[in-house]
Amino acid sequence: MLVRGAPLIGAAAAYGMALAMDEDPTDRGLEEGYRTLVVTRPTAINLKWALDRMQRALKPLPTWARHDAAWELAAEIADEDVAINERIGENGLPIIEALARGRAGPVNILTHCNAGWLATVDWGTATAPIYKAFEKGVDLHVWVDETRPRNQGASLTAWELGKHGVKHTVIPDNSGGHLMQHGLVDMVIVGTDRTTARGDVCNKIGTYLKALAAFDNGVPFYVGLPSPTIDFAVDNGVREIPIEERGGEEVATVTGLTADGEIETVRVVPEGSPVANHAFDVTPARLVTGLITERGVCAATREALAHMFPERVHQSGEKAKPAQRGAAARS
Amino acid sequence: MLVRGAPLIGAAAAYGMALAMDEDPTDRGLEEGYRTLVVTRPTAINLKWALDRMQRALKPLPTWARHDAAWELAAEIADEDVAINERIGENGLPIIEALARGRAGPVNILTHCNAGWLATVDWGTATAPIYKAFEKGVDLHVWVDETRPRNQGASLTAWELGKHGVKHTVIPDNSGGHLMQHGLVDMVIVGTDRTTARGDVCNKIGTYLKALAAFDNGVPFYVGLPSPTIDFAVDNGVREIPIEERGGEEVATVTGLTADGEIETVRVVPEGSPVANHAFDVTPARLVTGLITERGVCAATREALAHMFPERVHQSGEKAKPAQRGAAARS
Repeated sequence: MLVRGAPLIGAAAAYGMALAMDEDPTDRGLEEGYRTLVVTRPTAINLKWALDRMQRALKPLPTWARHDAAWELAAEIADEDVAINERIGENGLPIIEALARGRAGPVNILTHCNAGWLATVDWGTATAPIYKAFEKGVDLHVWVDETRPRNQGASLTAWELGKHGVKHTVIPDNSGGHLMQHGLVDMVIVGTDRTTARGDVCNKIGTYLKALAAFDNGVPFYVGLPSPTIDFAVDNGVREIPIEERGGEEVATVTGLTADGEIETVRVVPEGSPVANHAFDVTPARLVTGLITERGVCAATREALAHMFPERVHQSGEKAKPAQRGAAARS
Repeated sequence: MLVRGAPLIGAAAAYGMALAMDEDPTDRGLEEGYRTLVVTRPTAINLKWALDRMQRALKPLPTWARHDAAWELAAEIADEDVAINERIGENGLPIIEALARGRAGPVNILTHCNAGWLATVDWGTATAPIYKAFEKGVDLHVWVDETRPRNQGASLTAWELGKHGVKHTVIPDNSGGHLMQHGLVDMVIVGTDRTTARGDVCNKIGTYLKALAAFDNGVPFYVGLPSPTIDFAVDNGVREIPIEERGGEEVATVTGLTADGEIETVRVVPEGSPVANHAFDVTPARLVTGLITERGVCAATREALAHMFPERVHQSGEKAKPAQRGAAARS
């Protein structure tokens, strides 16, 4: 958890492989680097995507050439991330502009967790359309879910929106449904750690609750979706995606600043009360209005995703063949 | 907010009127006590219920008799609260027993906020069936929502369940949907601050999100409902119930114990980021499986509630007549 945010994890993993090549550029070094890095975060699929891509590129090379190639490709993956997120911003912009048209007050956008530039190499995924709209002078206001237990919304998202000068209000995770019932939310936009072939969206715990409320109140629910986070080998997200469980201390304690400006951690759960800490949940595709990808906005359906990323479906189809599965898992 | 929990607020308000009679038992003292107390908590309807009852009983009495009568009636209201909650426990018990029948593991019950004996004079409302089942030896486990921003779940509910020896786990408010998707919640039970004539349930902010998730996953959603919290004069809860907004500091800061055992408050939202703090939300009746009242369990419908409490509908009907509305509001 030193590196967080799905896209940033991909770029960091690529650089991790480059570091591994510094130490040992043999096949054994390559395997070991892959194995060590792939287990660090079980839910974020683009970790595996970046590692697979590094391994595919490096394995055919002679040992002496792997070091330079690894650093080059890692830089390429990081640059691609910036480009992908900027395109997500451009593709999401018209949605916000359409909501702003003919309106007196600001467009109210609710977001959960941090899918801003603190979670990516630049721009952010969920926040990219927000920043693009802000730059174009669209009047907007962001409801920032606190995002317990790690408070990424209250700390990171609020902080980066504040730095940009974007109007925002921090709310408890409990508030979004009430705000939607009263017409105070015009759209929801979140990021994703993994999206399945049929459009189920795995994202920070609590996203599913906001999607239910959005659906119940006719509020459009969008996902900023860089294509590396699509896992075409997985279909039913609730059944198939492993959900990371984290330490209970994240729930039992809260860290913040005291009145004296010191960083302090306080316990908020009685000693002896057990705690559970599931890091992600899955929002079924039926609750998702649209996926904002680097190639355009599409419905959260198998057909739309396959149409948007045909080459990825093909790769995944080959992977899924039983005879090749073992090899694919290691390549 | 020195006194919290809908039922406890009713009893405390009754004693507040008794104290007012200590000071000034005239009509003016009675009016003033009523007016001062009724505005303290806009959402909790049984505050008004208790005050109306006190005023109705005291007004016809001569001034000299009001003091003793006030203290007697306040004690009666508090005793009634204990009896009501115990009946809610008895009426909810068969629901939990039915879920336990033929099961290997514990019955998993999710609750939000604190509707236990810390919020009432005794027993609690939502927790009364849990304690009754626990006393009868039913194997159960309670998922305790943290309940941001005041953390009544993590602190109060976890603490009182722990004191009773009831198995429980504290979870972030974001987790309930995920747990329900994975079959880890067998029922939800919450309290209520006000319930409308048609069964809309106003309760701690975030309750609506859990009701949506319960509905989406076929998990029964029950409300522990003392009849004084029914407001037969209100129908559409989302439109008609005023929702208390509290200070932003409750969201921006968290208070807990440091490693040294000191009480400390830490800031978790950046300085300069605005904060909103809505205290309650409304769960539409369509999401509620059943209302557990002191007279029995009924559906969250106008017909069922009217059938269960016919005398209350009658009172409310008279109040609603335009000619009497002004008088009713002051009586």
